[in-house]
Amino acid sequence: DRIRIVLSHPSHPGNIGATARAMKTMGLSQLVLVNPRSFPHPDADARSSNARDVLANAIVVDSLEAALAGTVLAIGAVGHRYDMAHELVSCRVAAGRAVADAAGGAAVAFVFGTETAGLTTDEMLRCNLLAHIPADPDYASLNLGAAVQVFAYELRMAAVETALPVQPAPPLATHDDIERLHVHLEQVMTRIGFFDPANPKRLLPRLRRLIARARLEVEEVRILRGLLTTLSKALKVD
Amino acid sequence: DRIRIVLSHPSHPGNIGATARAMKTMGLSQLVLVNPRSFPHPDADARSSNARDVLANAIVVDSLEAALAGTVLAIGAVGHRYDMAHELVSCRVAAGRAVADAAGGAAVAFVFGTETAGLTTDEMLRCNLLAHIPADPDYASLNLGAAVQVFAYELRMAAVETALPVQPAPPLATHDDIERLHVHLEQVMTRIGFFDPANPKRLLPRLRRLIARARLEVEEVRILRGLLTTLSKALKVD
Repeated sequence: DRIRIVLSHPSHPGNIGATARAMKTMGLSQLVLVNPRSFPHPDADARSSNARDVLANAIVVDSLEAALAGTVLAIGAVGHRYDMAHELVSCRVAAGRAVADAAGGAAVAFVFGTETAGLTTDEMLRCNLLAHIPADPDYASLNLGAAVQVFAYELRMAAVETALPVQPAPPLATHDDIERLHVHLEQVMTRIGFFDPANPKRLLPRLRRLIARARLEVEEVRILRGLLTTLSKALKVD
Repeated sequence: DRIRIVLSHPSHPGNIGATARAMKTMGLSQLVLVNPRSFPHPDADARSSNARDVLANAIVVDSLEAALAGTVLAIGAVGHRYDMAHELVSCRVAAGRAVADAAGGAAVAFVFGTETAGLTTDEMLRCNLLAHIPADPDYASLNLGAAVQVFAYELRMAAVETALPVQPAPPLATHDDIERLHVHLEQVMTRIGFFDPANPKRLLPRLRRLIARARLEVEEVRILRGLLTTLSKALKVD
């Protein structure tokens, strides 16, 4: 219940139905759709087979931000390697981490991009981790529903194998907390002229990558926000 | 090339197309169809995406016997446990055995039954081994193409095993670089009164833990040091 599947801008309602069916076969039920082109749709119902309940409970939102609300781990599914990418792992490794986090009580999201183009760079940067299915590099074009099936399968395999008690870890910051930290940091960096919005270069993506990798805890975000607030008051520039 | 996928009596040509696509994404090319209801068919072409070559090379036969000709290992895909003497393993274990046999030069077949009823008892008896995808027992109904996708994926994982593409990692900062960053950070925090050396509490250990966990890269330390330097110049306090 703590693991959600997010489809960003899916074009074909049939794929939404196939996704619902793939999820249900592996015991997943939380489907979030970011701006689907057509939903609800008879093709989605038809392809979902008996997983209509997953479709009926699907949540439709208008931004990836909204889809990731409350999550502490967002894993982006990608077809191949990218420059300036987050850590990239196999779907098997990603499933293991997701299940470990979920077992500890945290909300986790797997994010899938469009059928033709996959995730955008901006969407990837909003994830903590990228995962891929090690397909044949000569033809790595999995159908969206098939890709969800493989990820969902690995999640179930990881859940079945994870009988070990999880170490109690300090609570991790949610996606929302982290976004607010980014906004705060950008404000301070802009004020002191370290960041120039007119000439951003790669500073923000680099910092996003660092912070995504660090998996900040609630208490750490609180400290960093406190540091930024104290800094703001000590600045001579406005 | 030594591993073939056998679909026995598939009803829907769309599923044959999805199977071809699933196979090609995982580097499989040998498709054998036992008495398909409709093949060739435009729905098969449409769902195969760019895996038309797999469809074009598919062999159509009129019995499972013919489909298994030349194989030394036939693995039957089943949805659940049967009262049967055959050994039943997970698709992961089955894939490992299939790849081991194929690596030794033997031909191996994975056999899938119809969409509605699966393999018949007679078909199961002609296999050496039965394998299943550990789906949710409450809803184990994978689409045929999705089931082939999971098996094909496990075959590829077994074949490539650890040969996962590893990203060339950017150089990590040395211990000395990190220590200088800590000194710099402490100076700025002390100047603005966020850190009180006379009453240190647990601030520094907490930041050390965070930074240790992040495994900072050379370039990231450079950015953070630059940020601290720019900040220092912007402070009104001395």
